[in-house]
Amino acid sequence: MGVVVQNIERAEPGIVRRLGEAGVATVHEAQGRTGLMSSKMRPIQQDFGIAGSAVTISAPPGDNWMIHVAIEQLREGDIMVLAPTAPCDMGYFGDLLATSAMARGCRALVIDAGIRDTRELRRMGFAVWSTAISAQGTVKATVGSVNVPIVCAGAAVHPGDVIVADDDGVCVVPRARAEQVTAAAQKRLDAEEEKRRRFASGELGLDIYDFRPALAKKGLKYE
Amino acid sequence: MGVVVQNIERAEPGIVRRLGEAGVATVHEAQGRTGLMSSKMRPIQQDFGIAGSAVTISAPPGDNWMIHVAIEQLREGDIMVLAPTAPCDMGYFGDLLATSAMARGCRALVIDAGIRDTRELRRMGFAVWSTAISAQGTVKATVGSVNVPIVCAGAAVHPGDVIVADDDGVCVVPRARAEQVTAAAQKRLDAEEEKRRRFASGELGLDIYDFRPALAKKGLKYE
Amino acid sequence: MGVVVQNIERAEPGIVRRLGEAGVATVHEAQGRTGLMSSKMRPIQQDFGIAGSAVTISAPPGDNWMIHVAIEQLREGDIMVLAPTAPCDMGYFGDLLATSAMARGCRALVIDAGIRDTRELRRMGFAVWSTAISAQGTVKATVGSVNVPIVCAGAAVHPGDVIVADDDGVCVVPRARAEQVTAAAQKRLDAEEEKRRRFASGELGLDIYDFRPALAKKGLKYE
Amino acid sequence: MGVVVQNIERAEPGIVRRLGEAGVATVHEAQGRTGLMSSKMRPIQQDFGIAGSAVTISAPPGDNWMIHVAIEQLREGDIMVLAPTAPCDMGYFGDLLATSAMARGCRALVIDAGIRDTRELRRMGFAVWSTAISAQGTVKATVGSVNVPIVCAGAAVHPGDVIVADDDGVCVVPRARAEQVTAAAQKRLDAEEEKRRRFASGELGLDIYDFRPALAKKGLKYE
Amino acid sequence: MGVVVQNIERAEPGIVRRLGEAGVATVHEAQGRTGLMSSKMRPIQQDFGIAGSAVTISAPPGDNWMIHVAIEQLREGDIMVLAPTAPCDMGYFGDLLATSAMARGCRALVIDAGIRDTRELRRMGFAVWSTAISAQGTVKATVGSVNVPIVCAGAAVHPGDVIVADDDGVCVVPRARAEQVTAAAQKRLDAEEEKRRRFASGELGLDIYDFRPALAKKGLKYE
Amino acid sequence: MGVVVQNIERAEPGIVRRLGEAGVATVHEAQGRTGLMSSKMRPIQQDFGIAGSAVTISAPPGDNWMIHVAIEQLREGDIMVLAPTAPCDMGYFGDLLATSAMARGCRALVIDAGIRDTRELRRMGFAVWSTAISAQGTVKATVGSVNVPIVCAGAAVHPGDVIVADDDGVCVVPRARAEQVTAAAQKRLDAEEEKRRRFASGELGLDIYDFRPALAKKGLKYE
Repeated sequence: MGVVVQNIERAEPGIVRRLGEAGVATVHEAQGRTGLMSSKMRPIQQDFGIAGSAVTISAPPGDNWMIHVAIEQLREGDIMVLAPTAPCDMGYFGDLLATSAMARGCRALVIDAGIRDTRELRRMGFAVWSTAISAQGTVKATVGSVNVPIVCAGAAVHPGDVIVADDDGVCVVPRARAEQVTAAAQKRLDAEEEKRRRFASGELGLDIYDFRPALAKKGLKYE
Repeated sequence: MGVVVQNIERAEPGIVRRLGEAGVATVHEAQGRTGLMSSKMRPIQQDFGIAGSAVTISAPPGDNWMIHVAIEQLREGDIMVLAPTAPCDMGYFGDLLATSAMARGCRALVIDAGIRDTRELRRMGFAVWSTAISAQGTVKATVGSVNVPIVCAGAAVHPGDVIVADDDGVCVVPRARAEQVTAAAQKRLDAEEEKRRRFASGELGLDIYDFRPALAKKGLKYE
Repeated sequence: MGVVVQNIERAEPGIVRRLGEAGVATVHEAQGRTGLMSSKMRPIQQDFGIAGSAVTISAPPGDNWMIHVAIEQLREGDIMVLAPTAPCDMGYFGDLLATSAMARGCRALVIDAGIRDTRELRRMGFAVWSTAISAQGTVKATVGSVNVPIVCAGAAVHPGDVIVADDDGVCVVPRARAEQVTAAAQKRLDAEEEKRRRFASGELGLDIYDFRPALAKKGLKYE
Repeated sequence: MGVVVQNIERAEPGIVRRLGEAGVATVHEAQGRTGLMSSKMRPIQQDFGIAGSAVTISAPPGDNWMIHVAIEQLREGDIMVLAPTAPCDMGYFGDLLATSAMARGCRALVIDAGIRDTRELRRMGFAVWSTAISAQGTVKATVGSVNVPIVCAGAAVHPGDVIVADDDGVCVVPRARAEQVTAAAQKRLDAEEEKRRRFASGELGLDIYDFRPALAKKGLKYE
Repeated sequence: MGVVVQNIERAEPGIVRRLGEAGVATVHEAQGRTGLMSSKMRPIQQDFGIAGSAVTISAPPGDNWMIHVAIEQLREGDIMVLAPTAPCDMGYFGDLLATSAMARGCRALVIDAGIRDTRELRRMGFAVWSTAISAQGTVKATVGSVNVPIVCAGAAVHPGDVIVADDDGVCVVPRARAEQVTAAAQKRLDAEEEKRRRFASGELGLDIYDFRPALAKKGLKYE
Repeated sequence: MGVVVQNIERAEPGIVRRLGEAGVATVHEAQGRTGLMSSKMRPIQQDFGIAGSAVTISAPPGDNWMIHVAIEQLREGDIMVLAPTAPCDMGYFGDLLATSAMARGCRALVIDAGIRDTRELRRMGFAVWSTAISAQGTVKATVGSVNVPIVCAGAAVHPGDVIVADDDGVCVVPRARAEQVTAAAQKRLDAEEEKRRRFASGELGLDIYDFRPALAKKGLKYE
C-alpha cells in the first residue's frame, strides 16, 4: 500500500530563506495563525532557526524503513517531516541517517516521535524537532509512504510545503501561499521595529494600541 | 467583571534580594514547605535565579489583553505572574511585551501557559518560567483582572507576594511572612555550610543526623 | 520490612568504562534492545555520558531517608538508582547529598522522581537523570530498601547491574551479560564507522543494505 | 506544624441543597465562571450530583493520617476535600474510612489524589471525585492540617465553602457568596427553561441571541 | 477571516448507515488503517455506535460562537466535528446546544475539547465523543469557520466525510471513498463470521493463518 | 530472538480463587504493598474482579503476532499479561482473539497498551485491563516472547505469577508467595470485619487505633 511520490514541487529558495529569517512566531501570525504544530514538538538544540521544503514520511509505529526511502528523494534545503501512523516515542533516527541526509543537502528533521544520538546530531549541526528522545531502536518490516499528505503533531503537511522551525516550535506554510505569507511576514517585521522602539522608550501598549476605551466599555474597573 | 488593583504593597527590596539569593529550595524549606508551584513550571533559561514582587494577572484562556493592562502597574523589581482561567498552552507573551515590561523595570514572568520568542527573550535577559513554549498567538477580546488573588500552577498568589524562581522552579512567599522566611532561610544556609563541609570530608548523614538508632527501630535490617 | 544488602558484586571497571564510551543507543542495540528506561527519564546536564555500577534504592514516595543509607554502600564508580514505590515528583536529592555521594566516589544519580539544586549539581559535576525537577522537600519517616531488585522507569534493575546514561536516556546492562554486551557493542561501533563513511560519501541506505527488492516485494510503488 | 480548626462556619442547609440541584455547570456560570476544579477531577459513579460544606484536609503525599483526624470534625452534610502537598496518585481512602465518614453524616469525598475500593464505595452510596484510582496504600507518619485554606485541583477552597459536584466536575462556592450565587443560579435555570423550549421548537441561537449582525461585523462570510 | 460553507455534499444515507453498523475497528481496517482519531477521544456514553456526515467547525480556544453558526447548517443525520485552533479542555457544548442540534436532526458531536451537562446529554440520547469533560464556560467573541477542512484529534476531516464512532473511538471515512470502504468492511465482516466460528471451536490462529512456518523462519524458539 | 516457554508452573486453583475474592487492595496490603501496576491500568468493565495465572507476552510495539502464539499456551484460569517493548496505545486485541482465548479457558487480559471491540468484549464476558482503548490495528511482522519475565505497567511479572485484578487496578503475586499472601489477606479481611462494625457504630479511627497521643507528639494542634 506504500507510495513514493518522486517529483514534488518546492517553493523558491529565496522565499524559503526569508520565511526562515522571519521565524515561527511571525510566520504563524502572518498566515492568519494557522499551520502551527503542537507545543509538544521541541528542538534538541537551542537558539537556532531554519526553513526548508517538506519531504513527508508516513511511517508505521516503530518502523523507520521509510526514512531510507525518503533520503533518496531529498534535495538541497529539504526538511524531512515524519508522522507515525500511531503515537510512538521510539528512536527512529540517529547520527548515521543524519550523515546520509546531510550528504543529500538536508539539514533538519521534524518528527512526531523519538530520535537518538542527540549529542552527536548537535555536534554535526543537524537540527531536530521531535516529541521524544529515546534510544529505543526501530524495525524495518512494514512499508509506509513518502511525499503524501500527512498530519504531523496536529498540523496538516503536504509535500513541498515550507517548514519553518526555531526555538518556539514548528510552523507549516502551504507552498501555494508561501510568497504571500513572506510578504505579510515582512510587513509585520517592519511594523514591529517601530513598536519595539516605542515600547523600549516606555510607551504603553494601552496607549500605542488605544486599548483604554475598549477596556472601559468591556467593564474593566480600576481600584 | 474585570478589576485592576492599582496600589499594592510590596516587600522590602532588601528582603526580596536576600530571598532570591537563598534560592527556591532553601526558601521553600524555610517557610515550612509551602508555596511551591507545580514541577510543570520550567525556565526557558539555565543557571539563573531571581526574586521579585508579584503583579498578578488572571487572564481568559488564549487572551493576553490583561498583560498590557498589568504592565502599566509594574514597578522596578516586579515579576508578572499570570494564571489563565482554564488550561491553555498558547503563547501569551513575546519579545515586544518583554521590551515594554523591561522599560518599567520588570525582568521576569511566571506563567501557567505558553510564551514565544524564547531565543530573543534569552538574548534580552528577560527571564521566564512557563508551562509551555508556543508560537500560537492570543486575542484581545475579553477582560480579566490584575492584582487579584490567583492560583498559579497549584500555588495561591496574592499581589505583592515575593516570587522566588530559579532552575528548581518557582516558590511564593506571602508578603507578610517575607521577613521571617528570610531569617529562617539564612539560618538554613548557615547550617548547610557546616554540613557541606562534613559531607565533603566523608562523614555520613547516618552519623551526622544520628539516623542509625531510628532506622533500626523502624526495622531496617542489614544483610 | 526494609533491607540493606551490603556486599554486592559489580562488573569489571574496564567493562563499565567501555560500555560508557559506547553510549546508550549502541549498548541498547548490542543487548537485543532490552533494558532501556522510559523516555521520561531526562538528564539535567547536556552532552555528557557515563557508566557505573547500580546501587539500587527502593524508597517510599516523598521519603528520602534511604538515600542516606545507600550512600554508606557506595564505592568508587557507583551510580545510585532510585525508584519510589508510587509515582512521585518531589525533590529527593540536592547538593548536600551529592557532596556526600561524591565523597564516596559516586558521580551520578538515576531517579524516577524529582531532584533539586540542579544549577549547583551541574556546577559540581554531579550528573543526574530524573523524571522531574522540583524543590519540594521529602521526609525521613519510613524505611525502604537498598540493593534489592527494583523497577525504575519501566526497566528492571538489579544491584551491581551496569547503568549506561547519556543524552539519549538510561540503559541497564545485567552484570552477568556486561562482558558479552561490551563485545557486541564494540562490533557495532566498528561496523558503524564503515557505514558512516559510505553514507557521508553519498551512498544510500537503500543500496548499502540492499532494501530495494524487499520494499518492492512488500508493495512499495514509486510515482 | 499541623493544625486542626474545629468550629468552622457552614452555609445554610437549604442553600447548599439548592446549589446541588442547580448542578456544577449552572453554579459555575452563576458565580462568574470561577471556582471550578481541573477537568482531571473525575467521579467514580455516574449520573449523580451532590453539594455539601467543605471540611478541608492538607495531607502529605502518601500519608492519610489526617483523614482520621478530619472525620472527627465532620457534621451531617459535609464533604471532605483533600489536597496533597505534592502530586500523588496513591489510594488515600477506601471503604473502611467511608464507613466511618458515613457514620458522621458525610456522603462524599473530593480528592486530588487516588482512592480505592471503588466498587464497594459505589455499593455503599458514598460518592467520590478523584484524580486517580489506585490500590496503593498510604502511611500514617507525618501530620498535616484540617480546615485550613487549601488549593485542590487548581481551585482555592476554604473550610465551610460549598462544594458542588456532579458528572461535569467539582465547583467551589465561597460560603459568603453562597446565597447570592444560589439566587443567580435560579435565575439562570428559569431562563434556560424558556431557551430550551425555543431551541426544541427549532429556533436557532443565531436568532434567539441576535448573533447575525455581530458575526457579520467580525467578518464572517457565507459561501 | 471566518468562512461558512453552506452547501456541502454528503454520502448516501444507506452507505452511512452501513458504515455505522460495521463499527470503528472494522471500518478503520477496511480503509487501510487510516483516518482514526487519537485514543484521547472518548465517549460519554457506553455501548453505543453511530455514523453520520461531518459538519466541521474550526473554533478559537474557549469560544463556542461557531457552534451556533454550525447548527444552522445541520441536516438530518449529520455529526458535528469541532477542532479548536489550540489545545483546550473547556466545556464548549451542553444540553441547550444539544437541544438545538437535535431539533435539526443531529444526534452526535465529536470534539477535541471539553463538553458539559453529560448526565443530561446521556438522558437526551445525544452522543458525544470528547477529549475532556468540563463545566468551564466559553465566550462568544471571535469568529472561526464552518465546513472547512480541519485536523481533529490527529485526523484530517473534510466537510461531508463520514464519521463512524463507537466505544473504540472515532474514524473518518473520506466521502469519495465511502462506498468502496463500505464494501470492503462488509467483506471483512463476512470473513470474521467464519473465523469467529473456528476460533470458538478451539482452532488456533497459528493454524488458521498458518503462522508456524513464518514464526520459525523469524527465529521463534520453543522451550 | 523470540522464545516460548511451554510448561510453566501455576499456583493452586484454590489459592488463586481466594486471592481473587480478597481483591486488589487487600492483596496489595497483604504482601507488603508490592506488586501493584500503575494507576494508568484501567478496566473496560465495571464492578468486576478476577484472579488467574499469568501467561506473559513481550511484544514489539504495534505487533500482536505473539498473542496468537500465547493463546496456544493458555490453560483454564490463565490471564494473559502483555507488555510492549516500547510505549504503544494501539489496539492489540479484539473480539476474535478473545473468542480464541475463551475457547482455551482464559477469561481476562492485562495489557500495557490498547485494545478494541470493547462493547463486544463486555458482552462476551471477557475482562480487560488496559492503558488505552484504540481501534488502531497492529501488524504481524516481528517476533517477541511468551512466558518470559516482563515489566508490565511498572510491575515485574513472571510467568505463573498470580494476577489479581478488579476496579482498583491490577496486582501481581509471585507464585512462590501466593499461599502465604492468601493467608495474610484472609487475616486482614477478618480484622476488617470487626473494624467496619466499629466504624459503622460511630467509633473513630483516632480512638480505635489510639492515634491521639502520637499526633500530639508530632505537634498537631487543635484550635
